[in-house]
Amino acid sequence: MEEKELKEAADLIRRRKKFLVACHVRPDGDTLGSALALANALRQLGKDTVVVSADGVPEIYSFLPDGEDILKETSERAFDVAIVIDCDGIDRVGPALDAVKSARKVISIDHHTNSPPFGDIGLYNTEAAASGEIVLDLIDRLGVTLDERMAICLMTALVSDTGAFRFPNVTPRTFLFAAGLTAAGASASHIARLVYENRSLASARLMGIALAGLKVDKGGDLVWSVLSREDFEKTGAADADTEGVINHIMAVKGARVGLLFREAPDGPAIVSLRSRDSIDVSKVARAFGGGGHAAAAGCIISASLPEAERMALEEARKWMES
Amino acid sequence: MEEKELKEAADLIRRRKKFLVACHVRPDGDTLGSALALANALRQLGKDTVVVSADGVPEIYSFLPDGEDILKETSERAFDVAIVIDCDGIDRVGPALDAVKSARKVISIDHHTNSPPFGDIGLYNTEAAASGEIVLDLIDRLGVTLDERMAICLMTALVSDTGAFRFPNVTPRTFLFAAGLTAAGASASHIARLVYENRSLASARLMGIALAGLKVDKGGDLVWSVLSREDFEKTGAADADTEGVINHIMAVKGARVGLLFREAPDGPAIVSLRSRDSIDVSKVARAFGGGGHAAAAGCIISASLPEAERMALEEARKWMES
Repeated sequence: MEEKELKEAADLIRRRKKFLVACHVRPDGDTLGSALALANALRQLGKDTVVVSADGVPEIYSFLPDGEDILKETSERAFDVAIVIDCDGIDRVGPALDAVKSARKVISIDHHTNSPPFGDIGLYNTEAAASGEIVLDLIDRLGVTLDERMAICLMTALVSDTGAFRFPNVTPRTFLFAAGLTAAGASASHIARLVYENRSLASARLMGIALAGLKVDKGGDLVWSVLSREDFEKTGAADADTEGVINHIMAVKGARVGLLFREAPDGPAIVSLRSRDSIDVSKVARAFGGGGHAAAAGCIISASLPEAERMALEEARKWMES
Repeated sequence: MEEKELKEAADLIRRRKKFLVACHVRPDGDTLGSALALANALRQLGKDTVVVSADGVPEIYSFLPDGEDILKETSERAFDVAIVIDCDGIDRVGPALDAVKSARKVISIDHHTNSPPFGDIGLYNTEAAASGEIVLDLIDRLGVTLDERMAICLMTALVSDTGAFRFPNVTPRTFLFAAGLTAAGASASHIARLVYENRSLASARLMGIALAGLKVDKGGDLVWSVLSREDFEKTGAADADTEGVINHIMAVKGARVGLLFREAPDGPAIVSLRSRDSIDVSKVARAFGGGGHAAAAGCIISASLPEAERMALEEARKWMES
């Protein structure tokens, strides 16, 4: 991000009156927290501000201050400026696209790599761990003082995009921002608990079944587990409840490749793959028509669970040996 | 901690030549990382420095730079200065006590509350999340520049005493220090993985059994699990492998009181208790001769596992209702 764009954005914001701040669909803590903090700053500057999140605010983020002001849709049009947050493409605002396009000017704020630029001013910084970092830069440039409500929103952005400071995307700047947000009244500890330590009983029991049934091969380099329909039924868990299970599989000492197999309600096997030490599991996923990155990939195999397990492990062993 | 003590300690260190740096028994990442970073700084100032850790370096911390220089004991005596780190009492250095007492001067560095002062100079700061923060102050005062090896040691101190920035003891200063350590080459992400995501297969399977068997009562306020001898035997896990299981129990949404019951090899039931929302579980533990804090307590009940479960839950329900 260039200093120039930051100045342009701040100048434009100061001159205009009616603002739309838009989150992406299937919103996370970064898009929601960043949008709410920025809206708060805009309102402090006396701007009329509407915040939209097409998919609303997931229950897990219901603690965000002013979250109740977020609209799922707005019939208002003719905004002076639309500020689109954390979207790698303007379409990611979902049904809010009409309202965004009604604005005279669009500012895009994003930290994703390979995000195709859109809008009149782009505040892009791929070094930022979260879009919240860029919003902090902008709020600072606007001369608005961080209050506790804004600090909580922005800490949520940082915590949710960094796994509570555990992902490699954390930079010295991320920690500096976290220091300032803590001083302004946000508790990283409290927010991390709300975002990460909030598993449903069904989900915790399902994770238990996955971990109790861990299997290993190749001297512990290869670790996996299998969840059948029966496991889902007896715990009452849904497929979304398996989120995070693969991370626990990879947390087993020595694991270099981890797999989680789960039986979809309609039959096929869903496979999540993770790796470290530069083993490329996207090659395994691609062998079955899936995809992903070197360290995190997935695929769906139209076969019985034991058969899918055999096929994927055979492919994984091949790539681990190459 | 007073500015005065910090200056006194730095002045004393500059004048002397032969140093002992001592860790506490059953060492953690804070005592080890802090001791190694300080020893590194002392050596850069040309001081003869011996580091002792009576219980050595646990395998989980074997990644610490220069960890191989740590001695379990030393026959050397007559140190100019002994610096005792993270000890709430001089006896906590264990068998290194003789060597510590042989020093002409003793400096104690600690962040624990209610730590009884000992030694000639005490660098105490109960606001510090880790003793590593105080060591950072001292290194800075000594005018030694942080190198990557020291940064890794001190980041380990911070990460291990804050649950990787997830405990409520984290302050703005902790995050500021983390920023500096990251800039100096330490990766919080990598260190958190080594310290926290390094479960043995037996331990992961045992955690799975505990989570798969979660029980709840009082509308989800009370969550617990029970591990029998058979569970330990079939996974090959030891009692130490249950570390962290209670945290996963408390991570279940809505849990206000969590308990883990486990059958000791010699019969009695070991009970770990946790709570939030100001429920005091130490009262439950004390009813069975145990102890602890309001939010974290433990006790041993000389009864069969089902009987201990019934007794402790009855007591817990009583305090939850009061």
